[in-house]
Amino acid sequence: MADHSVPEIVIGRLPIYLRTLELFAKEGKTITSSQELGERLGFSSAQIRKDLSFFGEFGKQGTGYNIEYLQEQLREILKVDRVWGMALVGAGDLGHALAHYRGFEPRGFRLAAIFDNAPEKIGTRIGDLRVHAIADLPRVLREMKLKIAILAVPADVAQNIAHQLVEAGICAILNYAPLHLTVPARVKVYDIDPVVGLQGMAYYL
Amino acid sequence: MADHSVPEIVIGRLPIYLRTLELFAKEGKTITSSQELGERLGFSSAQIRKDLSFFGEFGKQGTGYNIEYLQEQLREILKVDRVWGMALVGAGDLGHALAHYRGFEPRGFRLAAIFDNAPEKIGTRIGDLRVHAIADLPRVLREMKLKIAILAVPADVAQNIAHQLVEAGICAILNYAPLHLTVPARVKVYDIDPVVGLQGMAYYL
Repeated sequence: MADHSVPEIVIGRLPIYLRTLELFAKEGKTITSSQELGERLGFSSAQIRKDLSFFGEFGKQGTGYNIEYLQEQLREILKVDRVWGMALVGAGDLGHALAHYRGFEPRGFRLAAIFDNAPEKIGTRIGDLRVHAIADLPRVLREMKLKIAILAVPADVAQNIAHQLVEAGICAILNYAPLHLTVPARVKVYDIDPVVGLQGMAYYL
Repeated sequence: MADHSVPEIVIGRLPIYLRTLELFAKEGKTITSSQELGERLGFSSAQIRKDLSFFGEFGKQGTGYNIEYLQEQLREILKVDRVWGMALVGAGDLGHALAHYRGFEPRGFRLAAIFDNAPEKIGTRIGDLRVHAIADLPRVLREMKLKIAILAVPADVAQNIAHQLVEAGICAILNYAPLHLTVPARVKVYDIDPVVGLQGMAYYL
């Protein structure tokens, strides 16, 4: 069970630590430290130690962290020591790019079903998956017991589809539609809007 | 000039307010309030008022905000009352999806140049743009005076290309490569890694 006493901002940083440990392992490192992690990430070593201390003791004073062990622990904490099936709604350009993205599976996720409403797309294949009609969402999601969905549809239909996803048992939505989704408190949403990032940087230009 | 006394987290929320005002305008609204904005976004109205107060007085007590006026003001503050040209590095699936994304231009950005290192891609066209070799980055970026780049390349080459972008005058990078980029402090980076979002949500499943 998730421990809700850990601040959400701390949970949000764990994937960044995990990603960096994976990179260190690829570089051939076996041991690291909060200093080294912090330098690579532009974070303070104290913050990294404090974040990790919510979950236990992962390193020994003076010897640092065993990278393989810390990766395993973080994967277990984040529940990505397994592979989660995901529904993708929206088979446009972005949906295609996501369907072909090879970065999901090594990090705990894979697409299990794709949905779109365009008649010319329904029944076609993207990679190994057939595109279902959105009307089939409730049945397919329940049959496959999917908990996670990626929403890659235009803004004007996103809220309505988010509602259908929640009704069909989805608990986590990766939202590429450029608007804030209104969902029940128990449902997590992570927004990806490149223009929000660009506008925030443009201020400093 | 950017006012560096405004917290970066406040600047990061302004695009979300602007996006919501644009949605309200599309819905036919002309006046809104910090309460209504807050309800739509799941923020407190006090936070919205406090964020906006860094930049002046935009509404009158009791009458709320004029949506068109507040949009104009936010666009001016964020410097998106103009259209910024951007360089895109990486003409893979994601690069293609970004090149065809129609959401940039109405919100202040457009692709001005595309780069890739694959010989079979160099010289081909994506939309209106020809794909340049990465070796041409310095020349093209300086000629076009581009300040913003989108990095959509594999992780193992991203840091090296980020370095070349900074050398060529880029001040803001939208980074789709799944790693933390090390850049000079004056350069802004906004990371987009869907798996970081997914892993952070998986904790709560």
